Amino acid sequence: MEPPPGWAEVDGALERTFRLADFAAALAFVNRVGELAEAENHHPDVAIHWNRVTLRWWTHVEHAITERDRKLAALTNDLSESAGSGV
Amino acid sequence: MEPPPGWAEVDGALERTFRLADFAAALAFVNRVGELAEAENHHPDVAIHWNRVTLRWWTHVEHAITERDRKLAALTNDLSESAGSGV
Repeated sequence: MEPPPGWAEVDGALERTFRLADFAAALAFVNRVGELAEAENHHPDVAIHWNRVTLRWWTHVEHAITERDRKLAALTNDLSESAGSGV
Repeated sequence: MEPPPGWAEVDGALERTFRLADFAAALAFVNRVGELAEAENHHPDVAIHWNRVTLRWWTHVEHAITERDRKLAALTNDLSESAGSGV
């Protein structure tokens, strides 16, 4: 199955980098993703490099990308629409 | 000069990984570090892997570790004392 728009499969995870206005906006976006992750009890790897946020969704137990990862990647796109644009 | 306790020089940055109770605690710690970074206008690279937070302090302009990086690494240690223990 294709990953959601903007996402690519990289080293066994769905990965996308979002570019925000600045560090504060990047951190605010990470907090929104964090709320989603806590609600779903499914947590991406997160990397922040000033205004850039790289997320990696994958399923540890199955060592694979699952339907849940694709769903959460797509939901992350929704969050990013008000926070900034992906790169 | 020696890096602050718990920190090591890795690929030109002061790096340390902190292990928190869970993802929510890790994110809360990152927010405290983010407040410090905003106050100092100096921002570390941040990576979150569930309950583990890796921080890298370095000075982009000088492509080097400066006294400011050492200061902020030491201040991060103070923040971590109430948030979790470094690994």
